[in-house]
Amino acid sequence: MAKKPRVVILGAGFGGLWAARKLASADVDVLIIDKNNYHTFLPLLYQVAAAELEPERIAQPVRYLIRDQANLNFQMGAITAINPAEKTVAVDGESVGYDYLIVALGSTTAFFGVPGAEEHCFTLKSIDEAIEMRNHILRKIEAAANEPDPAKQKQMLTFAIVGGGATGVEYAGALAELIYQPLERDYPRLSLNKLARVILIEAGSQLLNGIDNGSYTAERLTKIGVDVRLNTKVESVEAGRINLADGEQILTDTAVWAAGIQGQPVVKSAGVGLTRGSQFEVLETLQSQDYPEMFVVGDLIRFMQDGKPLINTAQVAMQSGEVAAENVMAMINSKPLESFRYYDKGMMATIGRNAAVANIGGRHFTGFFAWLIWLFIHLFFLIGFRNRLGVLTNWAWNYLFYERVVRLIMPLDSSKE
Amino acid sequence: MAKKPRVVILGAGFGGLWAARKLASADVDVLIIDKNNYHTFLPLLYQVAAAELEPERIAQPVRYLIRDQANLNFQMGAITAINPAEKTVAVDGESVGYDYLIVALGSTTAFFGVPGAEEHCFTLKSIDEAIEMRNHILRKIEAAANEPDPAKQKQMLTFAIVGGGATGVEYAGALAELIYQPLERDYPRLSLNKLARVILIEAGSQLLNGIDNGSYTAERLTKIGVDVRLNTKVESVEAGRINLADGEQILTDTAVWAAGIQGQPVVKSAGVGLTRGSQFEVLETLQSQDYPEMFVVGDLIRFMQDGKPLINTAQVAMQSGEVAAENVMAMINSKPLESFRYYDKGMMATIGRNAAVANIGGRHFTGFFAWLIWLFIHLFFLIGFRNRLGVLTNWAWNYLFYERVVRLIMPLDSSKE
Repeated sequence: MAKKPRVVILGAGFGGLWAARKLASADVDVLIIDKNNYHTFLPLLYQVAAAELEPERIAQPVRYLIRDQANLNFQMGAITAINPAEKTVAVDGESVGYDYLIVALGSTTAFFGVPGAEEHCFTLKSIDEAIEMRNHILRKIEAAANEPDPAKQKQMLTFAIVGGGATGVEYAGALAELIYQPLERDYPRLSLNKLARVILIEAGSQLLNGIDNGSYTAERLTKIGVDVRLNTKVESVEAGRINLADGEQILTDTAVWAAGIQGQPVVKSAGVGLTRGSQFEVLETLQSQDYPEMFVVGDLIRFMQDGKPLINTAQVAMQSGEVAAENVMAMINSKPLESFRYYDKGMMATIGRNAAVANIGGRHFTGFFAWLIWLFIHLFFLIGFRNRLGVLTNWAWNYLFYERVVRLIMPLDSSKE
Repeated sequence: MAKKPRVVILGAGFGGLWAARKLASADVDVLIIDKNNYHTFLPLLYQVAAAELEPERIAQPVRYLIRDQANLNFQMGAITAINPAEKTVAVDGESVGYDYLIVALGSTTAFFGVPGAEEHCFTLKSIDEAIEMRNHILRKIEAAANEPDPAKQKQMLTFAIVGGGATGVEYAGALAELIYQPLERDYPRLSLNKLARVILIEAGSQLLNGIDNGSYTAERLTKIGVDVRLNTKVESVEAGRINLADGEQILTDTAVWAAGIQGQPVVKSAGVGLTRGSQFEVLETLQSQDYPEMFVVGDLIRFMQDGKPLINTAQVAMQSGEVAAENVMAMINSKPLESFRYYDKGMMATIGRNAAVANIGGRHFTGFFAWLIWLFIHLFFLIGFRNRLGVLTNWAWNYLFYERVVRLIMPLDSSKE
C-alpha cells in the first residue's frame, strides 16, 4: 500500500478548520497544528473583552471538532519556522514534514509605525488579550472607586479606542453599555455616568467603512454615550496618554489599538516575497508563487478581486480554506486547479443593544432588524450547539436585565510549561 | 449626627458574605475587603479543575451581590497585616481602621511537613489553582499523544491525588470520568482507557470520613476506574514521583494535594495565639480571646462543640458569619452576645455521575438518590439565579452526552498590576 499524501494545516482558525473539514473524506493524512488546543470564534472576541461572554463560550477544543474525521490528527504547538524549500515546518523547534501545506496562521495587530502604540496599547486579537483587557478595565474602575485625586480618577475612567472599523465600533458600543448600565449600578458611590468616558478615534471620515455608508453608526454610538472623533489622527502613544495630530492630549490608562492587521511574523521565515503587511500575494489558486504545494488562506493573503484587495474577514478565511483544500486534492488527482473567487454573503457589525449595520447584496440595513440578522448569523456560525445555547442565554439575560454576567477579574494561569 | 460604627469584614467567602448580608439593615458602615472582585462558590471548584464548569460559573462579582445594600462598600485588595491592638488592618500595605472586625479570610492548603509536597503538588483552594490544574492535565494528555517513549507517556498519564476527604474523592471521580469518557473519544489514537491512571491515596482506612461509614465510596470510585489506595501514607514528593511509606514509588507528572487545610498565613500578624494550623481558638461568641471587637469565622476557627472540633465546611462559615454579625450588633446595642452553635444540616459528597454519599440527620444515603439531593442543594446555594441556570445546563449536557464542555487550555492573564 502506497503511503498516503500528508497534508499539514497550520492554524485551527476559520481558514484551517474549514480546509480540514473539506478534506474529511479524502484519501490523505491530515495534521492540524495550532498553538492552542481550541478554535476561537473571533467575531465575538470583543464581547469577552467587554465582560459579556465567558471566554469558554467562544472556544471549542480542536480535537472535539475533528474527532469524527478518521484521517485527521491534531498537534498542539507553536509554529516557529516554515521551510517550503525542504517541505518542512518547525513546531516548537521540531521539524515536521509535509507533502502539501495550507498556511492558515492568521494575523496580528499592525501599528503602522505610530510611536509608542505597540508598547502602550491593548490589542484584541486573541482570547488571552481579551481577558487581559477585561481584567484591566475592571481593575481600573475598581481602583478609581478608591482614588481621592480627581485628575487621576478621570484618567483611570477614560477608555480610548483607536480605529473605527468593526472591532473598534463593536467594542466601543459594548464597553459603553457595560460601564453605563451594570457597572453604574455596581458602583453607586462613583457616578460612572458622569465620570467615565469611552472615546472612539478614527482617522478617516467614516465609521465601519464598507458596511455603513452614512452617519448611522456615529449617531448611534453617540446616543449610547461614546465620544466619537472622526478625522482624528493619532500621532503617538505614551504611558497614560494619547497624543493626537491636532495637538490634543487624551489622558488615559486604557488605550486600545483596533486599527489594523498584519500577517503573523513567523511567515517571514518562509523566505518568499511578502507585502509590507506580511501577507502573501498568492496565485489565483491560493498557491504560493514560489512553491506550488504551499497554499495560503485567510488573513494571510492579499487577494485582488475586481481590481480591489479583499477585506480579510472570517468569510474570506472559510471560503479560501475550502478552495485550498479542494486544490490540494486536485493536485493529488492531477486535475486542473480552480481559481479562488470570494462570494460576498454580506458584512455586518453590531453597535450595542438592539442596533447593527449590515450590507447584504449591496443593500444597507440599520437598527433593530439589522441587529436581529447579525444575531442569528452569528449564532448560526458559532461552532457547537451547546455554545450557541450558552451564548443565547447570556445575551437574553443581558437583554432582559441590562446585566453583564462575567465582570470578574480573574488573573489566571500563565504557565505555558 | 454621630458617626456610624465601622464594621470591616476581611474576605468575601461564605463567612464574610453571610456576615455582610446579616448587617444589611443595620445602622453601621460596612466595608468588605477581598483580594478578588468576586465571591467563589468553593464546593464546585473541583468541577472547574476537571473541565466540567467554566470558572465564571462559580464566581460572582462582590459588588453585584451587595449592591442593594446601601450601608455596604467593597474594596479590592490583599490583606497584608492585621493589627487588633490599633484596630487597623493593612490592605496592600495601606492602613484601614475599624470599630469592629470580622476575620473571614479562610484557609490554604496544609502539607503537614511532608517533604517536597508544597513544592511539587498541585492544590485546589482557588479558581486560579483550579484553572492551572485543568490546563496542566490537558497539556499532559496532549503531550502524551506525541510522546514516543512508553515510560514517559505512562508518567504523563498518571494522575495521583493525595487525600480521601471530600475534595480528593470528588476530584478523583470527576477526573476519571473526564479522562475515560470525553477525552477517550477526543484521542482515538491514544487509548486512554488502557494507558491513563487516576490514583487516590488515603492514609486512613476510610474515604469521606464523617460522611460515608462503609465501603460504598471506595467501591464506586473503583468501578469508574479510580485506583483507590487506603492505609497508604505518603513519605515524600519529588519532581515526577511520589514516594510511599511502604517503599513503592508512583511515577507521575501530576500530584494533587487535597489532604488538609490551615488558616491563611496573614492571620499570624495579628499577634494572638493560634493553633498549629494557624486557626483561632475563639470564645463561644466567636470573639478573639484577646480583643473583644475582633470576631473570627469560617475556616479560621478551631471550634469545639460537644467535645469534638468542628469540621470547617461552607455551612460552618455561613452560620458563624451570621452569628458574628449578630454579635457585633449586640455589642453596639449593649445587649448580651449569643454563643455560636453549629447546626448540622447534613454533609455530602458526589462520586462522579449519578452517585453520591450523604449524611443527613444521622442517616446515610448513597447512590442516585443521594446524588439528586446533592445536585439540588448545590444548585440552591449557588449564588445567583443565572449561574444556577448555567450550571444546570452544563450538567444536563454532560449527563446526556457524556461530554465535558470546557476542556480548553487557556493560559491567561497573570498580570496583577
